[in-house]
Amino acid sequence: MAYRPTVARQDRDLELRERILDCALQRVAEGGFAALTMQALAEDVGIATGSLYRHFRGKGELAAEVFARASQLEVDTLAAVLRGPGTPDQRLAEGLRQFAARAWHSRRLAFALIAEPVDPEVDEQRLLYREAYAKLYADLLREGVAAGAFRLTAISLVAACLVGATAESLVGPLSPPARAARAAGHALPDLGEVSQTLVTFCLRAVGAQLPAEEPQP
Amino acid sequence: MAYRPTVARQDRDLELRERILDCALQRVAEGGFAALTMQALAEDVGIATGSLYRHFRGKGELAAEVFARASQLEVDTLAAVLRGPGTPDQRLAEGLRQFAARAWHSRRLAFALIAEPVDPEVDEQRLLYREAYAKLYADLLREGVAAGAFRLTAISLVAACLVGATAESLVGPLSPPARAARAAGHALPDLGEVSQTLVTFCLRAVGAQLPAEEPQP
Repeated sequence: MAYRPTVARQDRDLELRERILDCALQRVAEGGFAALTMQALAEDVGIATGSLYRHFRGKGELAAEVFARASQLEVDTLAAVLRGPGTPDQRLAEGLRQFAARAWHSRRLAFALIAEPVDPEVDEQRLLYREAYAKLYADLLREGVAAGAFRLTAISLVAACLVGATAESLVGPLSPPARAARAAGHALPDLGEVSQTLVTFCLRAVGAQLPAEEPQP
Repeated sequence: MAYRPTVARQDRDLELRERILDCALQRVAEGGFAALTMQALAEDVGIATGSLYRHFRGKGELAAEVFARASQLEVDTLAAVLRGPGTPDQRLAEGLRQFAARAWHSRRLAFALIAEPVDPEVDEQRLLYREAYAKLYADLLREGVAAGAFRLTAISLVAACLVGATAESLVGPLSPPARAARAAGHALPDLGEVSQTLVTFCLRAVGAQLPAEEPQP
Protein backbone atom coordinates (compact mmCIF):
# COMPACT_ATOMS: atom_id res chain seq x y z
CA MET A 1 0.00 0.00 0.00
CA ALA A 2 1.34 3.42 -0.95
CA TYR A 3 2.30 5.80 1.80
CA ARG A 4 -0.61 8.05 2.69
CA PRO A 5 -0.37 10.62 5.48
CA THR A 6 -3.00 10.25 8.16
CA VAL A 7 -5.41 13.09 8.93
CA ALA A 8 -3.73 13.60 12.30
CA ARG A 9 -0.37 13.88 10.57
CA GLN A 10 -1.74 16.41 8.10
CA ASP A 11 -3.17 18.50 10.96
CA ARG A 12 0.17 18.49 12.76
CA ASP A 13 1.90 19.54 9.52
CA LEU A 14 -0.49 22.45 9.02
CA GLU A 15 -0.09 23.52 12.63
CA LEU A 16 3.70 23.45 12.35
CA ARG A 17 3.53 25.39 9.09
CA GLU A 18 1.49 28.10 10.83
CA ARG A 19 3.99 28.24 13.67
CA ILE A 20 6.87 28.57 11.21
CA LEU A 21 5.11 31.44 9.45
CA ASP A 22 4.34 33.21 12.74
CA CYS A 23 7.98 32.98 13.81
CA ALA A 24 9.13 34.11 10.36
CA LEU A 25 6.86 37.18 10.47
CA GLN A 26 8.22 37.99 13.92
CA ARG A 27 11.78 37.86 12.56
CA VAL A 28 10.95 40.14 9.60
CA ALA A 29 9.12 42.58 11.88
CA GLU A 30 12.20 42.83 14.09
CA GLY A 31 15.06 42.71 11.61
CA GLY A 32 13.65 42.81 8.09
CA PHE A 33 13.99 40.05 5.50
CA ALA A 34 17.74 40.17 6.09
CA ALA A 35 17.10 38.56 9.48
CA LEU A 36 15.07 35.75 7.95
CA THR A 37 17.61 32.95 7.54
CA MET A 38 16.51 29.32 7.47
CA GLN A 39 18.90 28.38 10.26
CA ALA A 40 17.89 31.14 12.69
CA LEU A 41 14.23 30.50 11.94
CA ALA A 42 14.57 26.75 12.60
CA GLU A 43 16.11 27.61 15.98
CA ASP A 44 13.21 29.98 16.78
CA VAL A 45 10.70 27.28 15.94
CA GLY A 46 12.73 24.62 17.71
CA ILE A 47 13.05 22.22 14.76
CA ALA A 48 15.90 21.04 12.58
CA THR A 49 16.74 23.16 9.52
CA GLY A 50 16.02 20.10 7.39
CA SER A 51 12.44 19.97 8.69
CA LEU A 52 11.96 23.58 7.62
CA TYR A 53 12.78 22.59 4.06
CA ARG A 54 9.98 20.01 4.18
CA HIS A 55 7.55 22.94 4.42
CA PHE A 56 9.29 25.58 2.27
CA ARG A 57 11.58 24.94 -0.64
CA GLY A 58 13.85 27.78 0.39
CA LYS A 59 14.16 31.26 1.78
CA GLY A 60 12.63 32.88 -1.30
CA GLU A 61 9.41 30.86 -1.07
CA LEU A 62 9.18 31.41 2.68
CA ALA A 63 9.84 35.16 2.37
CA ALA A 64 7.21 35.43 -0.36
CA GLU A 65 4.60 33.76 1.88
CA VAL A 66 5.46 35.96 4.86
CA PHE A 67 5.19 38.98 2.57
CA ALA A 68 1.82 37.87 1.19
CA ARG A 69 0.32 37.28 4.64
CA ALA A 70 1.48 40.60 6.06
CA SER A 71 0.42 42.49 2.94
CA GLN A 72 -2.99 40.84 2.77
CA LEU A 73 -3.68 42.09 6.29
CA GLU A 74 -2.79 45.65 5.20
CA VAL A 75 -4.97 45.40 2.08
CA ASP A 76 -7.93 44.09 4.12
CA THR A 77 -7.49 46.80 6.74
CA LEU A 78 -7.39 49.53 4.09
CA ALA A 79 -10.36 48.01 2.28
CA ALA A 80 -12.45 48.19 5.46
CA VAL A 81 -11.99 51.98 5.56
CA LEU A 82 -12.23 52.67 1.82
CA ARG A 83 -15.48 50.67 1.62
CA GLY A 84 -16.79 51.94 4.97
CA PRO A 85 -19.09 54.82 5.88
CA GLY A 86 -18.47 58.44 4.87
CA THR A 87 -18.07 60.40 1.65
CA PRO A 88 -15.45 59.17 -0.85
CA ASP A 89 -13.03 61.97 0.02
CA GLN A 90 -13.40 61.36 3.76
CA ARG A 91 -12.78 57.66 3.23
CA LEU A 92 -9.71 58.31 1.08
CA ALA A 93 -8.27 60.67 3.70
CA GLU A 94 -9.02 58.25 6.53
CA GLY A 95 -7.60 55.28 4.62
CA LEU A 96 -4.36 57.17 3.93
CA ARG A 97 -4.06 58.29 7.55
CA GLN A 98 -4.59 54.73 8.76
CA PHE A 99 -2.10 53.33 6.22
CA ALA A 100 0.55 55.84 7.29
CA ALA A 101 -0.07 55.24 11.00
CA ARG A 102 0.09 51.46 10.69
CA ALA A 103 3.33 51.67 8.71
CA TRP A 104 4.75 54.17 11.20
CA HIS A 105 4.03 51.96 14.17
CA SER A 106 5.62 48.89 12.53
CA ARG A 107 8.38 50.68 10.69
CA ARG A 108 10.80 47.82 10.30
CA LEU A 109 8.08 45.58 8.88
CA ALA A 110 6.65 48.32 6.66
CA PHE A 111 10.04 49.09 5.15
CA ALA A 112 10.64 45.37 4.62
CA LEU A 113 7.31 45.03 2.81
CA ILE A 114 7.62 48.17 0.70
CA ALA A 115 11.26 48.47 -0.24
CA GLU A 116 13.82 46.23 1.42
CA PRO A 117 16.09 44.67 -1.21
CA VAL A 118 15.15 41.00 -1.17
CA ASP A 119 14.64 37.81 -3.21
CA PRO A 120 12.91 38.11 -6.61
CA GLU A 121 10.06 35.96 -5.24
CA VAL A 122 9.15 38.84 -2.93
CA ASP A 123 9.41 41.33 -5.79
CA GLU A 124 6.85 39.16 -7.65
CA GLN A 125 4.52 39.43 -4.67
CA ARG A 126 5.10 43.18 -4.48
CA LEU A 127 3.79 43.53 -8.03
CA LEU A 128 0.68 41.48 -7.17
CA TYR A 129 -0.06 43.45 -4.02
CA ARG A 130 0.47 46.78 -5.75
CA GLU A 131 -2.30 45.63 -8.08
CA ALA A 132 -4.50 44.73 -5.09
CA TYR A 133 -4.03 48.21 -3.61
CA ALA A 134 -4.64 49.80 -7.01
CA LYS A 135 -7.91 47.93 -7.36
CA LEU A 136 -9.11 49.22 -3.97
CA TYR A 137 -8.28 52.80 -4.90
CA ALA A 138 -9.83 52.38 -8.36
CA ASP A 139 -13.16 51.27 -6.86
CA LEU A 140 -13.22 54.28 -4.55
CA LEU A 141 -12.21 56.68 -7.33
CA ARG A 142 -14.97 55.38 -9.59
CA GLU A 143 -17.50 55.90 -6.84
CA GLY A 144 -16.10 59.33 -6.04
CA VAL A 145 -16.21 60.46 -9.67
CA ALA A 146 -19.83 59.33 -9.95
CA ALA A 147 -20.66 61.26 -6.77
CA GLY A 148 -18.87 64.38 -8.04
CA ALA A 149 -16.31 64.21 -5.22
CA PHE A 150 -13.31 63.59 -7.49
CA ARG A 151 -12.51 65.05 -10.90
CA LEU A 152 -10.54 62.67 -13.13
CA THR A 153 -11.00 60.30 -16.02
CA ALA A 154 -8.21 57.71 -16.17
CA ILE A 155 -9.29 55.81 -13.06
CA SER A 156 -6.81 52.95 -13.13
CA LEU A 157 -3.83 55.15 -13.93
CA VAL A 158 -4.68 57.54 -11.11
CA ALA A 159 -5.15 54.56 -8.78
CA ALA A 160 -1.63 53.42 -9.68
CA CYS A 161 -0.29 56.92 -8.97
CA LEU A 162 -1.88 56.77 -5.50
CA VAL A 163 -0.28 53.39 -4.79
CA GLY A 164 3.12 54.74 -5.78
CA ALA A 165 2.78 57.99 -3.85
CA THR A 166 1.66 56.29 -0.63
CA ALA A 167 4.38 53.65 -0.72
CA GLU A 168 7.18 56.03 -1.62
CA SER A 169 6.26 58.72 0.90
CA LEU A 170 6.83 56.12 3.60
CA VAL A 171 10.02 54.57 2.24
CA GLY A 172 12.20 57.56 3.12
CA PRO A 173 10.95 58.17 6.68
CA LEU A 174 10.84 54.42 7.40
CA SER A 175 14.22 53.54 5.96
CA PRO A 176 17.05 52.32 8.20
CA PRO A 177 19.17 55.47 7.57
CA ALA A 178 16.23 57.70 8.48
CA ARG A 179 15.60 55.71 11.62
CA ALA A 180 19.26 55.96 12.58
CA ALA A 181 19.23 59.72 11.99
CA ARG A 182 16.11 60.08 14.10
CA ALA A 183 17.67 58.03 16.88
CA ALA A 184 20.69 60.35 16.71
CA GLY A 185 18.40 63.31 17.33
CA HIS A 186 18.23 64.75 13.80
CA ALA A 187 14.96 66.41 12.86
CA LEU A 188 12.97 64.24 10.48
CA PRO A 189 9.28 64.33 9.59
CA ASP A 190 7.01 62.85 12.24
CA LEU A 191 3.92 60.77 11.62
CA GLY A 192 1.63 63.79 11.74
CA GLU A 193 3.56 65.54 9.00
CA VAL A 194 3.86 62.43 6.80
CA SER A 195 0.17 61.68 7.22
CA GLN A 196 -1.03 65.23 6.55
CA THR A 197 1.29 65.65 3.56
CA LEU A 198 0.09 62.39 2.04
CA VAL A 199 -3.59 63.24 2.54
CA THR A 200 -3.21 66.73 1.04
CA PHE A 201 -1.12 65.40 -1.86
CA CYS A 202 -3.61 62.68 -2.76
CA LEU A 203 -6.83 64.64 -2.26
CA ARG A 204 -5.53 67.47 -4.43
CA ALA A 205 -4.23 65.01 -7.03
CA VAL A 206 -7.64 63.40 -7.52
CA GLY A 207 -9.34 66.77 -7.78
CA ALA A 208 -11.14 66.63 -4.42
CA GLN A 209 -12.23 69.77 -2.66
CA LEU A 210 -9.89 70.17 0.31
CA PRO A 211 -11.60 70.92 3.65
CA ALA A 212 -9.73 74.23 3.91
CA GLU A 213 -7.70 75.01 0.77
CA GLU A 214 -5.44 77.35 2.81
CA PRO A 215 -3.14 77.21 4.71
CA GLN A 216 -1.01 74.38 3.28
CA PRO A 217 -0.49 71.55 3.67
CA MET B 1 59.05 40.58 -9.57
CA ALA B 2 55.38 40.58 -8.75
CA TYR B 3 52.87 40.45 -11.57
CA ARG B 4 51.81 43.93 -12.61
CA PRO B 5 49.39 44.49 -15.50
CA THR B 6 50.79 46.71 -18.24
CA VAL B 7 48.97 49.91 -19.22
CA ALA B 8 48.02 48.34 -22.56
CA ARG B 9 46.54 45.35 -20.74
CA GLN B 10 44.55 47.66 -18.44
CA ASP B 11 43.20 49.57 -21.44
CA ARG B 12 42.11 46.34 -23.12
CA ASP B 13 40.42 45.26 -19.88
CA LEU B 14 38.49 48.52 -19.61
CA GLU B 15 37.47 48.32 -23.24
CA LEU B 16 36.22 44.76 -22.83
CA ARG B 17 34.35 45.76 -19.67
CA GLU B 18 32.57 48.50 -21.63
CA ARG B 19 31.69 46.05 -24.38
CA ILE B 20 30.29 43.59 -21.83
CA LEU B 21 28.13 46.31 -20.30
CA ASP B 22 26.88 47.45 -23.71
CA CYS B 23 25.88 43.89 -24.63
CA ALA B 24 24.28 43.41 -21.20
CA LEU B 25 22.18 46.56 -21.55
CA GLN B 26 21.08 45.38 -24.98
CA ARG B 27 19.93 42.05 -23.49
CA VAL B 28 17.97 43.79 -20.70
CA ALA B 29 16.39 46.21 -23.17
CA GLU B 30 15.19 43.27 -25.27
CA GLY B 31 14.22 40.67 -22.68
CA GLY B 32 14.49 42.25 -19.23
CA PHE B 33 16.87 41.12 -16.48
CA ALA B 34 15.48 37.61 -16.94
CA ALA B 35 17.34 37.48 -20.26
CA LEU B 36 20.63 38.49 -18.65
CA THR B 37 22.36 35.19 -18.00
CA MET B 38 26.15 34.99 -17.78
CA GLN B 39 26.30 32.28 -20.42
CA ALA B 40 24.16 34.03 -23.03
CA LEU B 41 25.99 37.28 -22.39
CA ALA B 42 29.40 35.65 -22.82
CA GLU B 43 28.20 34.32 -26.19
CA ASP B 44 27.00 37.80 -27.24
CA VAL B 45 30.38 39.30 -26.34
CA GLY B 46 32.26 36.39 -27.89
CA ILE B 47 34.25 35.44 -24.80
CA ALA B 48 34.32 32.46 -22.43
CA THR B 49 31.92 32.58 -19.48
CA GLY B 50 34.97 32.33 -17.21
CA SER B 51 36.37 35.58 -18.64
CA LEU B 52 33.10 37.30 -17.79
CA TYR B 53 33.61 36.39 -14.16
CA ARG B 54 37.00 38.13 -14.25
CA HIS B 55 35.07 41.39 -14.74
CA PHE B 56 31.94 40.78 -12.68
CA ARG B 57 31.64 38.56 -9.65
CA GLY B 58 28.22 37.35 -10.73
CA LYS B 59 24.91 38.20 -12.29
CA GLY B 60 23.81 40.34 -9.36
CA GLU B 61 26.79 42.66 -9.62
CA LEU B 62 26.50 42.85 -13.39
CA ALA B 63 22.75 43.54 -13.26
CA ALA B 64 23.31 46.25 -10.66
CA GLU B 65 25.83 48.00 -12.89
CA VAL B 66 23.59 47.78 -15.96
CA PHE B 67 20.76 49.19 -13.85
CA ALA B 68 22.91 52.04 -12.53
CA ARG B 69 24.09 53.07 -16.01
CA ALA B 70 20.64 53.04 -17.57
CA SER B 71 19.11 54.84 -14.58
CA GLN B 72 21.82 57.50 -14.46
CA LEU B 73 21.02 58.37 -18.07
CA GLU B 74 17.34 58.80 -17.14
CA VAL B 75 18.20 60.94 -14.11
CA ASP B 76 20.50 63.16 -16.17
CA THR B 77 17.91 63.52 -18.92
CA LEU B 78 15.22 64.49 -16.42
CA ALA B 79 17.61 66.87 -14.66
CA ALA B 80 18.26 68.71 -17.90
CA VAL B 81 14.55 69.56 -18.22
CA LEU B 82 13.84 70.23 -14.54
CA ARG B 83 16.82 72.62 -14.35
CA GLY B 84 16.22 74.07 -17.81
CA PRO B 85 14.32 77.16 -18.95
CA GLY B 86 10.67 77.86 -18.14
CA THR B 87 8.58 78.35 -15.01
CA PRO B 88 8.74 75.61 -12.35
CA ASP B 89 5.32 74.25 -13.28
CA GLN B 90 6.16 74.19 -16.98
CA ARG B 91 9.40 72.35 -16.24
CA LEU B 92 7.65 69.84 -14.01
CA ALA B 93 5.05 69.14 -16.69
CA GLU B 94 7.69 68.85 -19.41
CA GLY B 95 9.91 66.62 -17.28
CA LEU B 96 7.00 64.26 -16.58
CA ARG B 97 6.00 64.15 -20.24
CA GLN B 98 9.56 63.37 -21.27
CA PHE B 99 9.92 60.70 -18.56
CA ALA B 100 6.70 59.00 -19.67
CA ALA B 101 7.61 59.17 -23.36
CA ARG B 102 11.11 57.75 -22.84
CA ALA B 103 9.70 54.90 -20.74
CA TRP B 104 6.98 54.27 -23.31
CA HIS B 105 9.41 54.01 -26.18
CA SER B 106 11.69 51.58 -24.31
CA ARG B 107 9.00 49.71 -22.46
CA ARG B 108 10.84 46.49 -21.81
CA LEU B 109 13.82 48.37 -20.39
CA ALA B 110 11.64 50.78 -18.39
CA PHE B 111 9.70 47.93 -16.79
CA ALA B 112 12.98 46.14 -16.02
CA LEU B 113 14.37 49.25 -14.34
CA ILE B 114 11.23 50.14 -12.39
CA ALA B 115 9.66 46.88 -11.33
CA GLU B 116 10.96 43.62 -12.78
CA PRO B 117 11.55 41.11 -9.97
CA VAL B 118 15.30 40.72 -9.85
CA ASP B 119 18.40 40.24 -7.67
CA PRO B 120 18.57 42.16 -4.35
CA GLU B 121 21.62 44.01 -5.69
CA VAL B 122 19.32 45.74 -8.20
CA ASP B 123 16.78 46.49 -5.46
CA GLU B 124 19.61 48.26 -3.60
CA GLN B 125 20.27 50.38 -6.67
CA ARG B 126 16.57 51.09 -7.04
CA LEU B 127 16.55 52.65 -3.58
CA LEU B 128 19.56 54.82 -4.44
CA TYR B 129 18.11 56.01 -7.72
CA ARG B 130 14.73 56.74 -6.16
CA GLU B 131 16.65 59.09 -3.87
CA ALA B 132 18.37 60.68 -6.88
CA TYR B 133 15.00 61.33 -8.54
CA ALA B 134 13.57 62.63 -5.26
CA LYS B 135 16.45 65.09 -4.93
CA LEU B 136 15.78 66.46 -8.43
CA TYR B 137 12.09 66.95 -7.68
CA ALA B 138 12.88 68.47 -4.26
CA ASP B 139 15.12 71.12 -5.82
CA LEU B 140 12.40 72.06 -8.30
CA LEU B 141 9.70 72.08 -5.61
CA ARG B 142 11.80 74.37 -3.40
CA GLU B 143 12.27 76.77 -6.29
CA GLY B 144 8.59 76.57 -7.22
CA VAL B 145 7.43 77.26 -3.66
CA ALA B 146 9.73 80.30 -3.46
CA ALA B 147 8.32 81.55 -6.77
CA GLY B 148 4.73 80.99 -5.60
CA ALA B 149 4.12 78.38 -8.31
CA PHE B 150 3.57 75.47 -5.89
CA ARG B 151 1.81 75.45 -2.53
CA LEU B 152 3.28 72.89 -0.10
CA THR B 153 5.58 72.70 2.90
CA ALA B 154 7.03 69.20 3.30
CA ILE B 155 9.30 69.39 0.25
CA SER B 156 11.13 66.08 0.58
CA LEU B 157 8.00 64.09 1.37
CA VAL B 158 6.17 65.53 -1.62
CA ALA B 159 9.22 64.83 -3.77
CA ALA B 160 9.05 61.19 -2.68
CA CYS B 161 5.33 61.09 -3.55
CA LEU B 162 6.16 62.34 -7.05
CA VAL B 163 8.81 59.64 -7.50
CA GLY B 164 6.33 56.96 -6.45
CA ALA B 165 3.48 58.27 -8.58
CA THR B 166 5.58 58.57 -11.74
CA ALA B 167 7.12 55.12 -11.39
CA GLU B 168 3.89 53.37 -10.51
CA SER B 169 1.79 54.99 -13.23
CA LEU B 170 4.15 53.43 -15.74
CA VAL B 171 4.46 49.97 -14.17
CA GLY B 172 0.95 48.92 -15.15
CA PRO B 173 0.95 50.09 -18.77
CA LEU B 174 4.53 48.86 -19.28
CA SER B 175 4.14 45.46 -17.67
CA PRO B 176 4.41 42.28 -19.71
CA PRO B 177 0.69 41.39 -19.16
CA ALA B 178 -0.35 44.86 -20.32
CA ARG B 179 1.84 44.57 -23.39
CA ALA B 180 0.38 41.17 -24.19
CA ALA B 181 -3.15 42.52 -23.81
CA ARG B 182 -2.32 45.44 -26.07
CA ALA B 183 -0.83 43.10 -28.67
CA ALA B 184 -4.05 41.06 -28.49
CA GLY B 185 -6.02 44.20 -29.37
CA HIS B 186 -7.44 45.06 -25.96
CA ALA B 187 -7.93 48.75 -25.25
CA LEU B 188 -5.31 50.03 -22.83
CA PRO B 189 -4.18 53.57 -22.09
CA ASP B 190 -1.90 55.03 -24.75
CA LEU B 191 1.10 57.27 -24.13
CA GLY B 192 -0.96 60.44 -24.51
CA GLU B 193 -3.37 59.38 -21.80
CA VAL B 194 -0.64 58.18 -19.41
CA SER B 195 1.34 61.35 -19.93
CA GLN B 196 -1.61 63.73 -19.51
CA THR B 197 -2.91 61.86 -16.45
CA LEU B 198 0.51 61.97 -14.81
CA VAL B 199 0.98 65.68 -15.50
CA THR B 200 -2.48 66.60 -14.18
CA PHE B 201 -2.08 64.35 -11.13
CA CYS B 202 1.30 65.81 -10.17
CA LEU B 203 0.58 69.48 -10.91
CA ARG B 204 -2.59 69.35 -8.86
CA ALA B 205 -0.84 67.43 -6.08
CA VAL B 206 1.84 70.10 -5.64
CA GLY B 207 -0.77 72.84 -5.63
CA ALA B 208 0.12 74.30 -9.04
CA GLN B 209 -2.40 76.31 -11.00
CA LEU B 210 -3.44 74.09 -13.89
CA PRO B 211 -3.43 75.78 -17.34
CA ALA B 212 -7.18 75.19 -17.66
CA GLU B 213 -8.69 73.74 -14.47
CA GLU B 214 -11.63 72.33 -16.49
CA PRO B 215 -12.26 70.05 -18.29
CA GLN B 216 -10.38 67.14 -16.66
CA PRO B 217 -8.34 64.93 -16.61
